Amino acid sequence: LVGCVVSPNDFSFKALSTTRQCALNIPTVELAAQVVACGNATGAQVDKFASVGLTPRPARLIAAPLIAECYASLECRVVDTRLRNRYGFFVLEVVQAWTSPSVKAPRTLHHRGYGVFMVAGETIKLASRMR
Amino acid sequence: LVGCVVSPNDFSFKALSTTRQCALNIPTVELAAQVVACGNATGAQVDKFASVGLTPRPARLIAAPLIAECYASLECRVVDTRLRNRYGFFVLEVVQAWTSPSVKAPRTLHHRGYGVFMVAGETIKLASRMR
Repeated sequence: LVGCVVSPNDFSFKALSTTRQCALNIPTVELAAQVVACGNATGAQVDKFASVGLTPRPARLIAAPLIAECYASLECRVVDTRLRNRYGFFVLEVVQAWTSPSVKAPRTLHHRGYGVFMVAGETIKLASRMR
Repeated sequence: LVGCVVSPNDFSFKALSTTRQCALNIPTVELAAQVVACGNATGAQVDKFASVGLTPRPARLIAAPLIAECYASLECRVVDTRLRNRYGFFVLEVVQAWTSPSVKAPRTLHHRGYGVFMVAGETIKLASRMR
């Protein structure tokens, strides 16, 4: 399961509510410019695949396309909307996951707002019984 | 608001449910060993501050103590438990935030499971209208 907050002002809010499906595509730092371009456009007005320069790839279990440039994609169904109207919070169930085996050490992005991203990539391992 | 999943097997689940308060203390990579030690102990049996070697600091608005070694702490109240029993999901409201002004570039930890952590710290900035 994945929890996801979407602003009711975003086109994605309506799309999630009506289709009850979505793809979560995980970008790496190499795609930062495209991530920002996606964030500054709205799917209500433009085809972001074309305007941003990304490649749609058919999903297996949902109608929404995946983004071929992303090293990992999660096909999801909306399973709980009890907190949607109050917080914009959707509970998603991942029904199919994809990952690119050639990407061994993805450097992922975490938006801190206003175009500032933290980059994660360095990995450390400690002895632990934690799952 | 912060959303937080806690296993019903964890002592924190009961504590959150009864006190309806908690502190979220954000560690940096320098505290990785202590993070693992906390994850491998249970507050039901030991005082983790003593066993792990961390320093409690009184909070302002909640009864739970903060962790002095963490560069940021959030004092929280539980505001919604509708998804608690099904998913272990709590909605928290941050009522007081603390940050150490001397820590300019915190390197934060993201647990991938089994003692493996991604470290974020590098920051990039792109021109964007995104908030």
